[in-house]
Amino acid sequence: MSRIVQKYGGTSVADTARFMKVARRVKNYHDQGHEVVVVVSAMGGVTDHLIRLANEVGGDSNDREMDMLLATGEQQSVALLAMALHGLGCPAISLTGAQAGIETDGVHCKARIRNITPERIENYLNDGSVVIVAGFQGSTQDNVITTLGRGGSDLTAVALAAVLHADLCQIYTDVEGVYTADPRIVPEARKISVISHDEMLELASLGTKVMQSRSVEFAKKFGVQLEVRSSLSDRDGTIITEETAAMEEVVIRGVSYDRNEAKLTLHNVADEPGRAACLFGILAAASINVDMIIQNASEEGRADISCTVPQGELKIIRRQLAARIVEEVGCDEIAYDEDVAKVSLVGIGMRSHSGVAAEMFAALAGEGINIQMISTSEIKISCVIAESAVELAVRTLHRAFKLEQEPGNGA
Amino acid sequence: MSRIVQKYGGTSVADTARFMKVARRVKNYHDQGHEVVVVVSAMGGVTDHLIRLANEVGGDSNDREMDMLLATGEQQSVALLAMALHGLGCPAISLTGAQAGIETDGVHCKARIRNITPERIENYLNDGSVVIVAGFQGSTQDNVITTLGRGGSDLTAVALAAVLHADLCQIYTDVEGVYTADPRIVPEARKISVISHDEMLELASLGTKVMQSRSVEFAKKFGVQLEVRSSLSDRDGTIITEETAAMEEVVIRGVSYDRNEAKLTLHNVADEPGRAACLFGILAAASINVDMIIQNASEEGRADISCTVPQGELKIIRRQLAARIVEEVGCDEIAYDEDVAKVSLVGIGMRSHSGVAAEMFAALAGEGINIQMISTSEIKISCVIAESAVELAVRTLHRAFKLEQEPGNGA
Repeated sequence: MSRIVQKYGGTSVADTARFMKVARRVKNYHDQGHEVVVVVSAMGGVTDHLIRLANEVGGDSNDREMDMLLATGEQQSVALLAMALHGLGCPAISLTGAQAGIETDGVHCKARIRNITPERIENYLNDGSVVIVAGFQGSTQDNVITTLGRGGSDLTAVALAAVLHADLCQIYTDVEGVYTADPRIVPEARKISVISHDEMLELASLGTKVMQSRSVEFAKKFGVQLEVRSSLSDRDGTIITEETAAMEEVVIRGVSYDRNEAKLTLHNVADEPGRAACLFGILAAASINVDMIIQNASEEGRADISCTVPQGELKIIRRQLAARIVEEVGCDEIAYDEDVAKVSLVGIGMRSHSGVAAEMFAALAGEGINIQMISTSEIKISCVIAESAVELAVRTLHRAFKLEQEPGNGA
Repeated sequence: MSRIVQKYGGTSVADTARFMKVARRVKNYHDQGHEVVVVVSAMGGVTDHLIRLANEVGGDSNDREMDMLLATGEQQSVALLAMALHGLGCPAISLTGAQAGIETDGVHCKARIRNITPERIENYLNDGSVVIVAGFQGSTQDNVITTLGRGGSDLTAVALAAVLHADLCQIYTDVEGVYTADPRIVPEARKISVISHDEMLELASLGTKVMQSRSVEFAKKFGVQLEVRSSLSDRDGTIITEETAAMEEVVIRGVSYDRNEAKLTLHNVADEPGRAACLFGILAAASINVDMIIQNASEEGRADISCTVPQGELKIIRRQLAARIVEEVGCDEIAYDEDVAKVSLVGIGMRSHSGVAAEMFAALAGEGINIQMISTSEIKISCVIAESAVELAVRTLHRAFKLEQEPGNGA
């Protein structure tokens, strides 16, 4: 017998037929003797409908009341799932976030979990019940309802798994797991069976949209073992777990890409201390998320500085900051390029295997793909390339590192 | 400055345009310096939709989870109304029943309020905020969500008015107040300006469907002054208040009728002690609500017993209890009549004015309406008549007692 937290997103409970499907799956686990805690999101479409109503009364900017309103979506889901389980003869009890003991700070619409008091859940588990908790929500110490923001239901599940010392936290979604690359681009992409938290974090931050980084970070911090899997099939998903020595045997875990990149270049900057600091000071003050930075070899005391930012933020720079940057940094002009993308290799095996970067650059060069910027960490290498080449790059790297083959060991 | 509790039902908040209308009304009161607590029901249609979803997952009989599910309807309403008020520049804060301190027993779907802790509401009122409370709901001492059953939002409003020592509790609905008779039957029916709690209770129990008896009883018990009025107009409604000496000057306050009556008659019952007790014991054990009872003058030691019950319950008697009654009571047969109705006159003035009954019977006789059964209390007289004559009877009595005329005094 183990203790399992399962999280079902909005598409898994899009209608009452899906609720019944989820209920049958939960009951199966319960029948096998597991202790099951289920975290549920709002039914697909419900949250959007509520936001529309809020807009109609002109109140979508009232964060406290938005939380009060949106929290009802998950509350409906937990009640319906509890009913469905009862109908199947499986004992189940529903709880709001507040009832489940999830205490947050008071930052409405993006609250952070401060503390969880799991006694009530423990008691119901001891009674043999499935416990169904509303995802995405909690309440402050003063009993004001809050929501956790994007990816909040995943976070609820991971936090509950941590505090309940669950053996596994299953995240049910509409994909079968984490893949070596986006299967829409690489048909031979393979579902990864095991991946470390760090690798998953890199993949998520580099564009692989399976789980939000915040939840994976939380899982890493508290040693929660995750499984990402599909609510539409019975196949095993991808286990995201603490790093083991054997994992390092696999050099590259996957290829990620992100089209939401844009590049700006400052030409002819005086090559003297403080110029870069001035530029990035202006960007930081405007909350622009700078990703990669390079500074070219200088000639005659002048340099070029390039950096990448999300595409939406490039617009802010062009409209609001460009003149000030040119004046304060002291450069000729700013060049913009929105037609760039980032392709990345991720794997903790890189730490102990040399030559990965060279192999990556060679593979891209072999297809005539020009590398504009490079950035590396201990477990990833990213290249900025032309956006038109991104699919070719992903396919090329997937093939070059033989990611379609199941690793012989370490996974 | 006074303290006012306002309650808006589902039709008053059927869509976001209606929410805006309610918000403007609430703001008006707030602008005039009143302290305003608003109790809101679920948007029209929302509760039915949720019940449909519950049916689809086979869970509509799970009372705990039904409460969890249905309570979201009111929670959405309070958030939307708070947003609408914010949009108009009026400070407002929403609370669930539990947050408002409404503690109930644990009887799901028809919980009773046990205690209200009004500190939180008081604090927000002191801050100058409108406080918006979800009607129809509360929570147990263990923080499990409950609902109060039919008419629950009225009850929330009355209970809050009592505990907050409000000067007035306004019940906004889709009628303009309480009328001397059903205006659909009596075109000259007049809106009553003031009525006592007791008279309102009699009218409600006799068929006038403006407010549930439970809420009026509560208002009477705690001395809450009610006003029933329309959310679609600005006209004053009907004040329901504690009895004053002057009110007795008005003999008849209104005429009520109820078509949902059925009569059964046991023929040839032995006229000896215990026979009636046997009959009504069987009916009570089956939770049949018996209204009027008459026993005819006996001949040769035999008697006829008649009583009236709600039409739906007559069916239960016919199908499940008839044979047992005939055997245990010892009578010939049971005669059933569903084509009866009850017409009633209500007024606390009857206590000090004699001759009302005679005048009523004469008026009905004058139109050839036969009276089958009669029942009286200190402040009402009811007659069972053929259902086909009910509209004529109501019009006749309304005219006979000159109810279309505004009373000269006492109101």
